[in-house]
Amino acid sequence: MLTIDYANCLNDRVPSHGLDAASIAAGSPSAQEATRLTASLEKTRNTGWERWRGLPHDPMRGAHVSAVKRVAHECAGKFDNMVVLGIGGSALGNIALQSALNPFTHNLMDGGKRQGPRLFVVDNVDPAYLGSVLAYCRATDPKLERTLFNVVSKSGETAETAAQFMTIRAMLIESLGQARHAKNIVAITDPEKGTMRSICDSQGYTTLPVPEGVGGRFSVLSPVGLFSAAMCGIDIDGLLDGAAAMDKRCRVADLTKNPAAMLATLLVRLGRENGKVNHVLMPYANSLYLLADWFRQLWAESLGKLHDKGGRQVFAGFTPIKALGTTDQHSQVQLYREGPNDKVFGLMEVESFGAGDMTIPSGLGVEAIEYLEGKKYSVLLNAEKRATEYALVESHRPNFTIRWPKIDAHHVGEFIWLWQMATAYAGLMLGIDAYDQPAVETGKKATFGLMGREGYSEWNDKVGSTLRRTDFVV
Amino acid sequence: MLTIDYANCLNDRVPSHGLDAASIAAGSPSAQEATRLTASLEKTRNTGWERWRGLPHDPMRGAHVSAVKRVAHECAGKFDNMVVLGIGGSALGNIALQSALNPFTHNLMDGGKRQGPRLFVVDNVDPAYLGSVLAYCRATDPKLERTLFNVVSKSGETAETAAQFMTIRAMLIESLGQARHAKNIVAITDPEKGTMRSICDSQGYTTLPVPEGVGGRFSVLSPVGLFSAAMCGIDIDGLLDGAAAMDKRCRVADLTKNPAAMLATLLVRLGRENGKVNHVLMPYANSLYLLADWFRQLWAESLGKLHDKGGRQVFAGFTPIKALGTTDQHSQVQLYREGPNDKVFGLMEVESFGAGDMTIPSGLGVEAIEYLEGKKYSVLLNAEKRATEYALVESHRPNFTIRWPKIDAHHVGEFIWLWQMATAYAGLMLGIDAYDQPAVETGKKATFGLMGREGYSEWNDKVGSTLRRTDFVV
Repeated sequence: MLTIDYANCLNDRVPSHGLDAASIAAGSPSAQEATRLTASLEKTRNTGWERWRGLPHDPMRGAHVSAVKRVAHECAGKFDNMVVLGIGGSALGNIALQSALNPFTHNLMDGGKRQGPRLFVVDNVDPAYLGSVLAYCRATDPKLERTLFNVVSKSGETAETAAQFMTIRAMLIESLGQARHAKNIVAITDPEKGTMRSICDSQGYTTLPVPEGVGGRFSVLSPVGLFSAAMCGIDIDGLLDGAAAMDKRCRVADLTKNPAAMLATLLVRLGRENGKVNHVLMPYANSLYLLADWFRQLWAESLGKLHDKGGRQVFAGFTPIKALGTTDQHSQVQLYREGPNDKVFGLMEVESFGAGDMTIPSGLGVEAIEYLEGKKYSVLLNAEKRATEYALVESHRPNFTIRWPKIDAHHVGEFIWLWQMATAYAGLMLGIDAYDQPAVETGKKATFGLMGREGYSEWNDKVGSTLRRTDFVV
Repeated sequence: MLTIDYANCLNDRVPSHGLDAASIAAGSPSAQEATRLTASLEKTRNTGWERWRGLPHDPMRGAHVSAVKRVAHECAGKFDNMVVLGIGGSALGNIALQSALNPFTHNLMDGGKRQGPRLFVVDNVDPAYLGSVLAYCRATDPKLERTLFNVVSKSGETAETAAQFMTIRAMLIESLGQARHAKNIVAITDPEKGTMRSICDSQGYTTLPVPEGVGGRFSVLSPVGLFSAAMCGIDIDGLLDGAAAMDKRCRVADLTKNPAAMLATLLVRLGRENGKVNHVLMPYANSLYLLADWFRQLWAESLGKLHDKGGRQVFAGFTPIKALGTTDQHSQVQLYREGPNDKVFGLMEVESFGAGDMTIPSGLGVEAIEYLEGKKYSVLLNAEKRATEYALVESHRPNFTIRWPKIDAHHVGEFIWLWQMATAYAGLMLGIDAYDQPAVETGKKATFGLMGREGYSEWNDKVGSTLRRTDFVV
């Protein structure tokens, strides 16, 4: 199972920049708070916007897994390309699962070697980006018969996804005809209401649900993330088993035994008491790097709040930053050690790369690099991680290590659940609503205004007068 | 040409979080400082570690371009795969140029459609990552006859690159024989001395120079970045023309006419006077996203310094953060608007996507999203950018826009030069050495110790005692 080693967050190691060990020991105010919050979270479990907490357990789990597997089975062998159209919580989980659990070269592989179709998650409306993916699909599949489009949008009104959907629908109808085109679209959307729901009903698209009470950034273990994963051969039962195992650990009232409560306590306290407001997640494994993008949304959008629940202005939140070891040792570590001491570093270490590990060959015989001969790559990678941990401690920069025994679906499920639960704890500690995102509304309305949507012309005027041209251009 | 619109960094727009317009006007202390620093930079131009400033001009330019083109010409048509082995400044520029100027699907395309070989830049020692790339090369080219390895290391002693080199050398010798294997390696290294230099001389590898006085993070427009670019059909003359054009603008003594001096003034002053210590670069174009990784190294490693030149502890530096529009509107903008007001946002807007632009089709006829019908994708993308700019201003978050007329080699060259020159200005403003990286030495030595390199055993002991095991694990 995943473990968190937090010795380097304590003042013994990083004097005056960490926490006192006594302040998180049994009986401490932090331990008492954790016990109280664990009890509070038991009460809200599976209610309101905490219905995501039911995802790894029956009845939600059984219903979703069987629906996902049924649709994946119907689609199996029929498609060479799969294009997910979604953005934010409708994309980041899909990308993270694919990059964590399938080879970096998945899309390059021949159909025989690849697990399922090539996967493209197009989470933007950049025409060059979308255009290049669609052109590639057409080059390999001129009529788009073997290209599946997976539209992910609860409402169907997210501008980016709506635009993409309109494009691929028109392409499919032109190529395959109105009657046939529906077979190449699977939509994941609200099961009952909304714009996309009515489109699906009228056009006859296969659908899977965005479950009620599960917000976008908590939806990766719902059909939103599971369908593309299942299509590409990822063990979705393993993901959910891992999540369920972590869930059990995160319901324990003892702070020192509860990974999510401890993670939230460390990060919230180091953020508020020690000014460590930037939270870096730095895996030493390329395949885990894009999990950090999923974490970025979860942590930023859940905790970044102007008001607390009492309506006071608090400007809460921490800035999540993704980094990659060893790569960013040659890019960011100079700053991390010598720049402002305003960060906590979450390092991630993988104990075993299994059969994929490699040995550095002997025989070059050049003295300066001879020490590498015959060593495993994993040994070098983890030595660099440990050296960086040491260097950070030397500079009094608090850090912790999430240790992965290996990278597989079970541990990815644990990781996802750990952070989702830590977010729930952190939201309570900060006294904010971790489940809303009020600040994104302004931009949506301003976009409507600028795009000429009826009823929003005042927003066009507001933007125009606020951002009128000046000479402050160089 | 690229322009910077900085109206949203001024207190008229972001009250008490920006700068006063008068404080950067002609005659202001900032304008006087810029004039002084421009003169100072004229004196250090092309000396010491500022020899990178000669890269877009003859004689350096002519010598490098002809050498790069000669080797690229010798290699043309002979290789299907090109694997760059390097890390940090030996990789980030290559990645940035390729993703900015070739299609997202470059590696997926058939040889006939692709400009040059598939390009893999393997900047880590994760065995799963390196292994997947090598396995893919072998799957398409079992004897590796048509796979070119481009080793980039000034010294040859960077552990990551050395390990990779040892692996691919052994593979090539096994497959092609000692005599033949040298034809599949091009090394970019010190022209005169060092471990890699002697290996190249003894093995007969083709080499290109890492020029003297050009540090890794300032090397993208040297052979380090230009060779893989040229191999993949990128217009390297265009890159250098763009850099030269920007160089001219960045030598003007008038702050309001000098983009690099203005950028440095804004970011350093907002950082020091207003606490905007996190510097976000957020392009609204997928192809520009990885330029932000190149920027991350340049800004972090150059400016993140414990001591100023007078030896005082200053903990200088700003944390560079990469984001992507519109994608991160659905992930980070909630935090950016409502969380701590500790950031400056550098938005990037592309005016024209040229022939690659697409139109959102009409005909779906669903009222809630009808406003999108018939609109260009670029119009939607830029409306979202403008809406975000408006939303940031509403929340008093300082931001500026770098406007690109279009994405091509010339403008990428301008962009690179703009930031390199801004870094030189910012280093002087902060009074630090922008060209060293003393803090990475500790980690290197600790790695040597942990890996058993002779002469470093004390480091193994230091790490062991500092990071001894505790019970602070959950």
